[in-house]
Amino acid sequence: MNITTFIGSSREESNSEQLADLVTRGIKHRKIYLKNLSIQPIHDLRHAEGGFQLVSDDYDTIIKAFLESDLIVFSTPIYWYSMSGIMKNMIDRLSQAIRDERFPQLKEHLQSIEAIVIAVGGDEPRIKGLPLIQQFQYTFDFLNMRFSTYILGEGNQPGDILQDQQALYQANLLNKRLKHL
Amino acid sequence: MNITTFIGSSREESNSEQLADLVTRGIKHRKIYLKNLSIQPIHDLRHAEGGFQLVSDDYDTIIKAFLESDLIVFSTPIYWYSMSGIMKNMIDRLSQAIRDERFPQLKEHLQSIEAIVIAVGGDEPRIKGLPLIQQFQYTFDFLNMRFSTYILGEGNQPGDILQDQQALYQANLLNKRLKHL
Amino acid sequence: MNITTFIGSSREESNSEQLADLVTRGIKHRKIYLKNLSIQPIHDLRHAEGGFQLVSDDYDTIIKAFLESDLIVFSTPIYWYSMSGIMKNMIDRLSQAIRDERFPQLKEHLQSIEAIVIAVGGDEPRIKGLPLIQQFQYTFDFLNMRFSTYILGEGNQPGDILQDQQALYQANLLNKRLKHL
Amino acid sequence: MNITTFIGSSREESNSEQLADLVTRGIKHRKIYLKNLSIQPIHDLRHAEGGFQLVSDDYDTIIKAFLESDLIVFSTPIYWYSMSGIMKNMIDRLSQAIRDERFPQLKEHLQSIEAIVIAVGGDEPRIKGLPLIQQFQYTFDFLNMRFSTYILGEGNQPGDILQDQQALYQANLLNKRLKHL
Repeated sequence: MNITTFIGSSREESNSEQLADLVTRGIKHRKIYLKNLSIQPIHDLRHAEGGFQLVSDDYDTIIKAFLESDLIVFSTPIYWYSMSGIMKNMIDRLSQAIRDERFPQLKEHLQSIEAIVIAVGGDEPRIKGLPLIQQFQYTFDFLNMRFSTYILGEGNQPGDILQDQQALYQANLLNKRLKHL
Repeated sequence: MNITTFIGSSREESNSEQLADLVTRGIKHRKIYLKNLSIQPIHDLRHAEGGFQLVSDDYDTIIKAFLESDLIVFSTPIYWYSMSGIMKNMIDRLSQAIRDERFPQLKEHLQSIEAIVIAVGGDEPRIKGLPLIQQFQYTFDFLNMRFSTYILGEGNQPGDILQDQQALYQANLLNKRLKHL
Repeated sequence: MNITTFIGSSREESNSEQLADLVTRGIKHRKIYLKNLSIQPIHDLRHAEGGFQLVSDDYDTIIKAFLESDLIVFSTPIYWYSMSGIMKNMIDRLSQAIRDERFPQLKEHLQSIEAIVIAVGGDEPRIKGLPLIQQFQYTFDFLNMRFSTYILGEGNQPGDILQDQQALYQANLLNKRLKHL
Repeated sequence: MNITTFIGSSREESNSEQLADLVTRGIKHRKIYLKNLSIQPIHDLRHAEGGFQLVSDDYDTIIKAFLESDLIVFSTPIYWYSMSGIMKNMIDRLSQAIRDERFPQLKEHLQSIEAIVIAVGGDEPRIKGLPLIQQFQYTFDFLNMRFSTYILGEGNQPGDILQDQQALYQANLLNKRLKHL
């Protein structure tokens, strides 16, 4: 069972990262800080002559993480009621990656991955975070990834998430399940 | 009546841009291609000592456009059921801009702006684009901008949007209304 | 091509009915006023000994309409951001109908039906009517019915819908398509 | 602190009722089984001459419960991704009640009520129950009621809810909070 967590916050030890850490506590996993990678926005050339062009940035790290994982935790702050821009750029580039001839097995491998979403926001996240969850659901449906569960936590100031008993409990439940996989 | 259109696609003459052009046809307006600007992802330093740091990129162009506009058209392709990453980065940085001491009047000015959203996608946009519309709504609510209307169009290949009669009609209706403002 | 329209309003010539009439104008179809039928709320006995009990009301009219239709228009006012209670009771009873031994072919027949939703409300229906559309989508997905399109119209006072140019145009477009089926 | 729970299921000891019972365990409260009341669907006469007509059913019980409560728990099974028809009919009639001259203080009193929603379903309730939550939110917003929290539980067979640890935990948390009100 290979687990990767993508950290989509721009802060150190953000609330969403802390919550993801609880989910994976005591479990071997890989953690990728999107803020430390250089990921270009997608240049959509699906219908252009020649198709997508090779981009010289760190995106291969992302593709490899997908290829080597059985379970992926997408951890993002809720910025303006959706995922952070750096995580959105990572997702957008999947359109290119699944057509990349260097990774012919990517599309099929995605179908074997379980996805978990951790999102933390300050403005009624359990209600106003719902469109974000629906978008992840449509995305995973499209890719045939299994969206097993999500946690919407509440937090604004650093560390706030440790006061959200419901989110902490969900993280602990999930941690127990992952330990038994 | 000053109108600005933000173009969030990474393509030339994208479907979403074409639809926005119909909305603003024959009307004096400014058009900003996000793909031609350098906009850094937000580095959330709200709670850090010293607060946000000055970022040296093209974001001031965005802030000025907001400050000089009475009506803004947000035109975006639907990438993975939400706005493009480059538009998301633009939105995210508003968190910094509304705290930027150089623009003390920004927050108040936003409250006088009318917002229109144009989004075009290939996978059942009138249903699967709904979470995107809800997120814009929450965002405009937070900023007290007036979200007057939106158009969800269908298109995949370049030019497809010109076959979507419903979207074209909505664009024409909106164009007539804007001409009489 | 057999078309049935379910009218879910409690008013005469409601806005939602008027809009549905435009969609089916000049086309042979059947119209069922839910307010004129007696439909009991579902009594969920799925897991009770003996299962569902025969209910003596007008629901067989509904089942027969489903069985005889290729296309169904669900026309409802938006009451409190969802369908009317009388339409909800009609939908709820489907749980019983698809298990009713008297209609063994119902479940399979539903999979061949195209569904259209017409909903009219007074409080920002194109945004606040979205959860209603999502619920219809989940429902049709579950039943494997094809949800081809929907119209969200704006209206409060009787006749208001005739001022909603966008909804009228969508109704006309749809009318043209249905005429060519 | 007067608490009322509306039970919207058509079953005895339904999963949604059991979950609501955990929320109110050890706390004085009133429980109203909608299935035991006769509540007519609304007949929308807002714009008709003479307005709404007096309906002779049990709805006054509902109005009085609203008037006497500081906190209301709406407990419903998720039928077809929304609230049960009997609960929908109860909600719809509020349109009449807030205009009922016999209860001039209702509209204002609603603004002082805290609302909690408990909904249990069998088909991915934490995702597919979200439109239901959004509808409650729009409804409470319209009425200026405070929507403090909700629980989406998973259950199909009677008693299933007792296996949903996350829902049970949320119920316990909420129970503790209510005990200290």
